[in-house]
Amino acid sequence: MTAVHRHSEHPLVVVLSGPSGVGKDATIARIREAGVKFHYVVTSTTREKRPGEVDGVDYCFFKREDFSQKIERDGFLEYAEVYGNLYGVPKDEVRDALKRGLDVIIKVDVQGAATLKEKIPDAVFVFLLPPSMEDLLGRLKGRNADSEAAVSTRIRKAEEEFKCMPLFDYCVVNYNDDLDRTAQAVAGIITTEKHRVKPRVINI
Amino acid sequence: MTAVHRHSEHPLVVVLSGPSGVGKDATIARIREAGVKFHYVVTSTTREKRPGEVDGVDYCFFKREDFSQKIERDGFLEYAEVYGNLYGVPKDEVRDALKRGLDVIIKVDVQGAATLKEKIPDAVFVFLLPPSMEDLLGRLKGRNADSEAAVSTRIRKAEEEFKCMPLFDYCVVNYNDDLDRTAQAVAGIITTEKHRVKPRVINI
Repeated sequence: MTAVHRHSEHPLVVVLSGPSGVGKDATIARIREAGVKFHYVVTSTTREKRPGEVDGVDYCFFKREDFSQKIERDGFLEYAEVYGNLYGVPKDEVRDALKRGLDVIIKVDVQGAATLKEKIPDAVFVFLLPPSMEDLLGRLKGRNADSEAAVSTRIRKAEEEFKCMPLFDYCVVNYNDDLDRTAQAVAGIITTEKHRVKPRVINI
Repeated sequence: MTAVHRHSEHPLVVVLSGPSGVGKDATIARIREAGVKFHYVVTSTTREKRPGEVDGVDYCFFKREDFSQKIERDGFLEYAEVYGNLYGVPKDEVRDALKRGLDVIIKVDVQGAATLKEKIPDAVFVFLLPPSMEDLLGRLKGRNADSEAAVSTRIRKAEEEFKCMPLFDYCVVNYNDDLDRTAQAVAGIITTEKHRVKPRVINI
């Protein structure tokens, strides 16, 4: 058989971002539950572990000194200090997954996505949106982990973050009552990107 | 409620192309069966109606004189003479469907797609591929409508057509045993395109 065309086997880097509380973690979990195969990059952080969080699953928890050393070794694709804690995307982990041919999903805040846009311009950038600001406010209050002041800071931050939308390729509204729809939309974006005639080539 | 973002309601023009015999009609039919809503543009032609074909469904059959008059009125987005018959994509029909907010699917041969790429650069261009040239040969022979010589002409034409692939946004392999997969891929492309941050704007 003469192969007319073989689908490109260039694995993708998908950067999933959006304001705090919009449902990035729940969306990624639902995509995995739906049987989509990908490597999820666990964010490294110096933040204190919250009750119920598991090291290596929710975050990779670092001592500040170790995190700083990894920064010096250029070990992060992107890192930032947010509310006094450091968060970073480990470079070697992304590179290893791509070498194994796996699509990679990176979850970052919008500022992080803006940095990654410079570092990995050929990644697929997806902005997750709440149906409305009121909805986002409700979600943040529902978490109960933050004070009223922190919630109001996050809302102002979200408003700023919406201004970064033009950096992104796609936006998906995460309707409260339909996480399946959100997950399907993101999974569909990944599938469609694999049908591109000119594949995205990732160099990191 | 403050709407943070409303999905763009810009209807798409999807140009589905690929070599003769690859399964463009079957794919479009299956997408419709799957419940995807779109306006399908029936190609106008001066070709003789074949047994079983319905005017206005398979093609809009024109007398050559009427077709020529419509050409003079600039009534076609694209038209071409193929094997001695004229084929054209009626402009008014596409424009009307878009005005009604409907996505439009246009089926054309690859040369027609190349012309449409100049006329409607912001359309979504999808190239439907056979799994192999042998497979395409088998499909053309199976049709029984063409002579051996015509089949061999079509194969040579297909080989030329593959060279136009870079004009297209996406390519989808139409596996013989899995038309659902092909239809899902094309429907997924349409859905994903609606999530673009910068919508495609069609001016015709």
